[in-house]
Amino acid sequence: MHRDELRRLLENVKNNKVDVAEALDRLKNLPYEDLGFAVIDHHRALRKGFPEVIFCQGKTAEQIAWIFKKLCGGDRGILGTRASYEAFEKVKEIYPDAVYHELARTIVIGRGEKPVRKGKILVMSAGTADMPVAEEAAITAEVMGNEVRRIYDVGVAGIHRLLDKLDEMRWAHVIVVVAGMEGALASVVGGLADQPVIAVPTSVGYGASFNGLAALLSMLNSCASGVSVVNIDNGFGAAAMANAITRMIEGARV
Amino acid sequence: MHRDELRRLLENVKNNKVDVAEALDRLKNLPYEDLGFAVIDHHRALRKGFPEVIFCQGKTAEQIAWIFKKLCGGDRGILGTRASYEAFEKVKEIYPDAVYHELARTIVIGRGEKPVRKGKILVMSAGTADMPVAEEAAITAEVMGNEVRRIYDVGVAGIHRLLDKLDEMRWAHVIVVVAGMEGALASVVGGLADQPVIAVPTSVGYGASFNGLAALLSMLNSCASGVSVVNIDNGFGAAAMANAITRMIEGARV
Amino acid sequence: MHRDELRRLLENVKNNKVDVAEALDRLKNLPYEDLGFAVIDHHRALRKGFPEVIFCQGKTAEQIAWIFKKLCGGDRGILGTRASYEAFEKVKEIYPDAVYHELARTIVIGRGEKPVRKGKILVMSAGTADMPVAEEAAITAEVMGNEVRRIYDVGVAGIHRLLDKLDEMRWAHVIVVVAGMEGALASVVGGLADQPVIAVPTSVGYGASFNGLAALLSMLNSCASGVSVVNIDNGFGAAAMANAITRMIEGARV
Amino acid sequence: MHRDELRRLLENVKNNKVDVAEALDRLKNLPYEDLGFAVIDHHRALRKGFPEVIFCQGKTAEQIAWIFKKLCGGDRGILGTRASYEAFEKVKEIYPDAVYHELARTIVIGRGEKPVRKGKILVMSAGTADMPVAEEAAITAEVMGNEVRRIYDVGVAGIHRLLDKLDEMRWAHVIVVVAGMEGALASVVGGLADQPVIAVPTSVGYGASFNGLAALLSMLNSCASGVSVVNIDNGFGAAAMANAITRMIEGARV
Amino acid sequence: MHRDELRRLLENVKNNKVDVAEALDRLKNLPYEDLGFAVIDHHRALRKGFPEVIFCQGKTAEQIAWIFKKLCGGDRGILGTRASYEAFEKVKEIYPDAVYHELARTIVIGRGEKPVRKGKILVMSAGTADMPVAEEAAITAEVMGNEVRRIYDVGVAGIHRLLDKLDEMRWAHVIVVVAGMEGALASVVGGLADQPVIAVPTSVGYGASFNGLAALLSMLNSCASGVSVVNIDNGFGAAAMANAITRMIEGARV
Amino acid sequence: MHRDELRRLLENVKNNKVDVAEALDRLKNLPYEDLGFAVIDHHRALRKGFPEVIFCQGKTAEQIAWIFKKLCGGDRGILGTRASYEAFEKVKEIYPDAVYHELARTIVIGRGEKPVRKGKILVMSAGTADMPVAEEAAITAEVMGNEVRRIYDVGVAGIHRLLDKLDEMRWAHVIVVVAGMEGALASVVGGLADQPVIAVPTSVGYGASFNGLAALLSMLNSCASGVSVVNIDNGFGAAAMANAITRMIEGARV
Amino acid sequence: MHRDELRRLLENVKNNKVDVAEALDRLKNLPYEDLGFAVIDHHRALRKGFPEVIFCQGKTAEQIAWIFKKLCGGDRGILGTRASYEAFEKVKEIYPDAVYHELARTIVIGRGEKPVRKGKILVMSAGTADMPVAEEAAITAEVMGNEVRRIYDVGVAGIHRLLDKLDEMRWAHVIVVVAGMEGALASVVGGLADQPVIAVPTSVGYGASFNGLAALLSMLNSCASGVSVVNIDNGFGAAAMANAITRMIEGARV
Amino acid sequence: MHRDELRRLLENVKNNKVDVAEALDRLKNLPYEDLGFAVIDHHRALRKGFPEVIFCQGKTAEQIAWIFKKLCGGDRGILGTRASYEAFEKVKEIYPDAVYHELARTIVIGRGEKPVRKGKILVMSAGTADMPVAEEAAITAEVMGNEVRRIYDVGVAGIHRLLDKLDEMRWAHVIVVVAGMEGALASVVGGLADQPVIAVPTSVGYGASFNGLAALLSMLNSCASGVSVVNIDNGFGAAAMANAITRMIEGARV
Repeated sequence: MHRDELRRLLENVKNNKVDVAEALDRLKNLPYEDLGFAVIDHHRALRKGFPEVIFCQGKTAEQIAWIFKKLCGGDRGILGTRASYEAFEKVKEIYPDAVYHELARTIVIGRGEKPVRKGKILVMSAGTADMPVAEEAAITAEVMGNEVRRIYDVGVAGIHRLLDKLDEMRWAHVIVVVAGMEGALASVVGGLADQPVIAVPTSVGYGASFNGLAALLSMLNSCASGVSVVNIDNGFGAAAMANAITRMIEGARV
Repeated sequence: MHRDELRRLLENVKNNKVDVAEALDRLKNLPYEDLGFAVIDHHRALRKGFPEVIFCQGKTAEQIAWIFKKLCGGDRGILGTRASYEAFEKVKEIYPDAVYHELARTIVIGRGEKPVRKGKILVMSAGTADMPVAEEAAITAEVMGNEVRRIYDVGVAGIHRLLDKLDEMRWAHVIVVVAGMEGALASVVGGLADQPVIAVPTSVGYGASFNGLAALLSMLNSCASGVSVVNIDNGFGAAAMANAITRMIEGARV
Repeated sequence: MHRDELRRLLENVKNNKVDVAEALDRLKNLPYEDLGFAVIDHHRALRKGFPEVIFCQGKTAEQIAWIFKKLCGGDRGILGTRASYEAFEKVKEIYPDAVYHELARTIVIGRGEKPVRKGKILVMSAGTADMPVAEEAAITAEVMGNEVRRIYDVGVAGIHRLLDKLDEMRWAHVIVVVAGMEGALASVVGGLADQPVIAVPTSVGYGASFNGLAALLSMLNSCASGVSVVNIDNGFGAAAMANAITRMIEGARV
Repeated sequence: MHRDELRRLLENVKNNKVDVAEALDRLKNLPYEDLGFAVIDHHRALRKGFPEVIFCQGKTAEQIAWIFKKLCGGDRGILGTRASYEAFEKVKEIYPDAVYHELARTIVIGRGEKPVRKGKILVMSAGTADMPVAEEAAITAEVMGNEVRRIYDVGVAGIHRLLDKLDEMRWAHVIVVVAGMEGALASVVGGLADQPVIAVPTSVGYGASFNGLAALLSMLNSCASGVSVVNIDNGFGAAAMANAITRMIEGARV
Repeated sequence: MHRDELRRLLENVKNNKVDVAEALDRLKNLPYEDLGFAVIDHHRALRKGFPEVIFCQGKTAEQIAWIFKKLCGGDRGILGTRASYEAFEKVKEIYPDAVYHELARTIVIGRGEKPVRKGKILVMSAGTADMPVAEEAAITAEVMGNEVRRIYDVGVAGIHRLLDKLDEMRWAHVIVVVAGMEGALASVVGGLADQPVIAVPTSVGYGASFNGLAALLSMLNSCASGVSVVNIDNGFGAAAMANAITRMIEGARV
Repeated sequence: MHRDELRRLLENVKNNKVDVAEALDRLKNLPYEDLGFAVIDHHRALRKGFPEVIFCQGKTAEQIAWIFKKLCGGDRGILGTRASYEAFEKVKEIYPDAVYHELARTIVIGRGEKPVRKGKILVMSAGTADMPVAEEAAITAEVMGNEVRRIYDVGVAGIHRLLDKLDEMRWAHVIVVVAGMEGALASVVGGLADQPVIAVPTSVGYGASFNGLAALLSMLNSCASGVSVVNIDNGFGAAAMANAITRMIEGARV
Repeated sequence: MHRDELRRLLENVKNNKVDVAEALDRLKNLPYEDLGFAVIDHHRALRKGFPEVIFCQGKTAEQIAWIFKKLCGGDRGILGTRASYEAFEKVKEIYPDAVYHELARTIVIGRGEKPVRKGKILVMSAGTADMPVAEEAAITAEVMGNEVRRIYDVGVAGIHRLLDKLDEMRWAHVIVVVAGMEGALASVVGGLADQPVIAVPTSVGYGASFNGLAALLSMLNSCASGVSVVNIDNGFGAAAMANAITRMIEGARV
Repeated sequence: MHRDELRRLLENVKNNKVDVAEALDRLKNLPYEDLGFAVIDHHRALRKGFPEVIFCQGKTAEQIAWIFKKLCGGDRGILGTRASYEAFEKVKEIYPDAVYHELARTIVIGRGEKPVRKGKILVMSAGTADMPVAEEAAITAEVMGNEVRRIYDVGVAGIHRLLDKLDEMRWAHVIVVVAGMEGALASVVGGLADQPVIAVPTSVGYGASFNGLAALLSMLNSCASGVSVVNIDNGFGAAAMANAITRMIEGARV
């Protein structure tokens, strides 16, 4: 497109429909604009269907509603993460089809939960207390169009519960492992799975968990290969990484 | 296979070719063996062509040579990471076709560098001092059968050098970003790329870099989505994660 | 048992009471089930009488009551740790025999405090502010069936108070030492006692106690031998470790 | 000057215009006064127009109003940073011309926002959440008499937005870069700009941002030269440093 | 005993066999001596057979030999931990029956490795690099008179290797788990075992392992109960704790 | 004394005034009692006039009042530190002569503020925000019977204000320096003073002050000699150390 | 220039000297090239006379000599920082006019030490052990063309030595303060000076200096305004920041 | 004195014995000189007999010998701390009466070890490995003229050894407690002693001792009052603080 536009401009110069000064003016800001828009367009084209995302934490309900308003309009969905129920109520006043996922603390507009793409993402969590982060990952991955399965409460202290799930683990393209405390689940899953594993440390724990630091360090030092890590409690980030992988799989540019 | 074997055993019991006591004995260790070997076989089958890997750091040249000897024999390659030249010389005495990559500090046996699979991995590094880690990632990814390209020395302090490489960035399935000091390259690449980005903090720096902690925290807090992180200086780990992704892409089980 | 079941199955195959396909189906999930249930059964059998434990912190009173409801029914007791009085009131509506230990912040159902086993556990604490954690340990140990004695407020700044307690210290099988601030009590007791000492750092203190880090590091570096450490404020964990030791003593499998 | 004054005093002693006791009295406090007042006067003279500054955090509205009252009176302005709206209301009761900047959380008295000096300071921020700190820097720099421009929300994850601003970046004498999370903006701006860059890490982020530590370390390790750093969230400090530079530029003592 | 001795002294005073001055002298040091020696005797009696222990790290070969000389003589063994081969050679010059365990870096005199007591201690390690610490624990436990078994190289990345060892795990009274990197083995073993588990983090790893901190925090936050922790690389300390438990089991004072 | 008592007992045994059984009983608890009470008496005698101290933080008003009640009665004063006004009101109901120092957050009973001993303690603070900790130190030192002077708000950013106070600094036996932020005042005072300097870091500051860690490390690394440090915000501890010094000065046992 | 080139291209299209396809090709890479080179040229032009800088630490003497060779040729100087004498000897073989500053550990080629610009930079250091870092700053600032004065060994423990230097402090445009241990000099100088102060923490110290962390935190929390901080031991970085300021002063674009 | 001198000068001016120019000259440097030298003189006078101190660590033997040469000459002694034997040999070449204390790593010139003042300082250490730091403290205190006693190897793991030393503890004016690992000795001694206690954490230990951090934090959080802390391994600093106290005691300015 951009190339065509450029060609038209040159042809117009050639045909004297546009004079050199005007062409120069239009080209003047080209570099950055071009860079900017090319990048953006390219991004957008590839990311088609990827929702806009609003990180709601630390914003008032009013601010969040206002941002939803500003972003909405296109056919892309909108995802609000770390949103309170109060924020949801404000948004719902404007968009009655907004849906709130209480556990995940997310607001979703304009995208049902049935997968529109073929990516298969498995979200596993170690304990029930890790579920909010796990659900943030799961909802995000679904909103991005993936099929998502959940296996929760399979901490390594009861390893047999985990081993019962080997079949389901084989189903997935990518596995997201969510765990607090000592975060050992990431290593055990990483040892059992062939897929890329994305580990999410959570701030679940107390004392020497240091708000997730123990799980974070544990996961970074995983003795299993094929494991990488995102920030503490960053369910959204894990889903975004997992989605980047499934989009690549679908792109099948091999 | 395992199922068939089991069926044969049962049929033999039925046909009195094997008596119950013997069958019981053979089944006795089944659970764990089965689990074990099934998992291993499954692993191995999928991982076909994946080399054995030896982490050489902290081992003597003799120990390393001995481990190479023990593992070698099949048609899989062997990769030794964090290996000194002394270790290589010991290994070379036994395996004259062993190759040493000085910068990457790796020993490779039995796998040329031309890709045998279709995975495309781009390894980028911020500074020349990050190259050993970047090369560890690149060589590892190659030995695992991927096509690898390298873009080195494109730190964010000279952002134009990075922007010149946008085309090459589009080529890859996965991008590995290797950076020390403040590790900002991961965020900038993460913002430009649609592919999954695997960030490797390095211990390059001094003072408040705290041996890579600054880069690690920086990468974990990346404002770009689609970025995950491995341990400091863990070039091998990044390549293993990248390879898990490209194998999934090739599997094309979408 | 499991072996007998397996033998019966094989005999039935032999006797054509069960055909091969059906036997195969029943064996298919054997490995994990077997592993799973064997482990669980073994666990359960040995742990007979060990209560179910609910970590109540971060859960609403309603959630806690609901979990109590779900777990209750058998003859095992239930222990809720880090529970508020509000949670207790909700639980008490359902189980009028529930008991609340205010200082320990625990809810106990179905187990009186008189010891049902022979384990002798001594819980010592350095200051009055450490008592909630000490009581969590003491109540937990009691609920698990041990005889428990308490020696509180014997900090090392008044060493004579501690030395007065040498006789009582000799009574115990295991000593749990609970201390915040600099946590020195663990080393002093470790030097005086022959028994295994389990040290629990508490978050009592301010400034450079860094929420229990000072006591934790102090205890890990104890110059006395026979001392091991659990997480900060983890009274429950210390009791569970102590109980594992007393059960082993009772098992008397020497 | 001081020397002349001293000479006059001595001559007056010699000429009996001043007696020894009086001279002694005047000389008695000379050392410290001289030191003290010389320094202060020099300071004051150079800092002419520099407002008094009150750090309001942790003070009650009453205390703040009281301090404003005590300081006010001269023709210098007064700046209150980290002030709540409640504090402002108390101050406004006394000084109806007091102005409150909600985002920056600053109270300003006696200085309009139009620059009275020639210093040009550009304040850039990475994300909308960094704006309160950025505004504290901007308002402070304005109150000190500089011309200030703002470029907000140009995080490195969308590098094209930043590159669009190169012209504006060339306008400034000093650039203040405000960023939380991974703080990468400081390095990218430092690589593009020739001016001194003052980096302000913010506590924006969560998990492994450790309340701004990640951004702080990132900025201290910047691979770009000409970058220095102030404390986390210290918008005021960055403005004070920037103002020290622009005053030096204006002084033009080269 | 002490009471009898005291009674005899008093009776002798009464019977004029001992005069007051002499009695006073003998009583003068009673308080502390009594305290001291009672404690020591009690200790020694219980610890009968427990070897003297020398922490050799940071001492010269000469110093170590000198300390061995000073301590030797009784029938108790001597154990030197963290000893270099050079130190051993010096000691061997004096005590030809001294034995050096290279991997464990220990020097042992006067105690064979066959158990003289009935304690059963299992030492497990995650990787081959953890073996020196594991061997320090194993040799120490043996020298203290326990029967010791070793299961090495059963890291959680290959969970089936661990599951194969369930029977051996059931054999032990106490399990010592030695692991570096993310230290996840402690949690998995803690979940499978009923015995007390003593976790030893090692400094094996690099980057964000921070010399064993990652494993230490991981183990302190273990989601399995019945796990306690000793200092990083403290194989000796784990064995001493395990031995305190087995002695208590043997004492069978239940 | 104790020796005499013992001699009398022995003589009484000798003279049959006390029989052996009774003597034995009286001697039975001698060791610890002797140790204990000797130490305590010695302590008490020397500490005569030293008030009982209650650390009120984390206790309810009711608990505090109850402890005051329990301790009161003798002629020693009582000092409650970190006490809220609510706690004071409860205490005042019982002891109408109780006095509350709002800034210092202390409750004092039974000791006026005029010095009863000759110790001269100077308390200096860097900023107004450090005053609560400084006042805790000052009030504590006064209650312990010292003469106390205060020099507040002499931070090193205005060094002349500090230099004006050299005379007052020479007055003191001990100087307590209270400072948050970078804590530089301790080094400057330590360089100017000949007296022992006790440095108290405060948690005043934000961002990279890390709740007083910056000031603490700064003070521990002071380039001036004759400076030692107490815990963050520990005004009481500094006063107790200062008082230990002034008591030693008064004891004049040189 | 670029604009002219673009105009010529358009005119050639208009005049049919260049056809549209060719013009399109030449424009295709324009954006990034343009961006890149424009930025670079702009940079270079402004930075005229600024030397190339080589960070030598961690490179072999051979590598360093090779890089000098590659960079040399223009009329700009070259500066090698953190260079060993061995590296210097290698460089000197090629460039006999290379000069080595032993204390600063720098190699300089092609720039005498007399200032070629008007910037006045004062480098102050607290102790003699801080001199290597101070000299790195001083030499760097000189090589960049500034006039540099040095005031060393004026630590705050002897404040009078510092106060004697007030006149020299007034001379400078920018002050670089280099200090290890508690780093208090930055605050004291920041309180006395009106100029921008750049603080360089050094790793000088031991124990709780944690390799410069104490000084770093101290400087970041400076109570004086107009102070900013660079990385630990980063003398070069401080000089680069100071030079950015003096160039701005000279530019006099006010 | 100073006032008198000033008066005389003014009278001499008045009486024409000194002309104005000369008076001006003498007054010119008055402020700082006065400040400076007054301070210094005052310092020196009080510190009479206090040796010059050279921190030798990180300096070459040549540099150290050169500094000794520069400082020597007066009748004050010189103390070199952290000095190698090599440095001593260089110094001895110049000053044959120099004495080297191997354990303390100190060089002493010109001061015998017999006390010249009346200060009584007790140095206690927990383990033999802490002795170098303890000896640095002891030698320093002796060189400063105090009587010093040493009680070494009285760690809290053998509390009876410590309790045997109560009499010796009562002898001292000040107690210096040197301990590594968990540093608990400081609290126990602080609880037993009435004197000021100066705690010196040492870097003795491994793993989670983090080079003395554990002992440092432990001592800062001591539950005993009258304890203050110096930097890790800072034996000199503890002695300097102790000496400041004993000088104050001798001054007896009460």
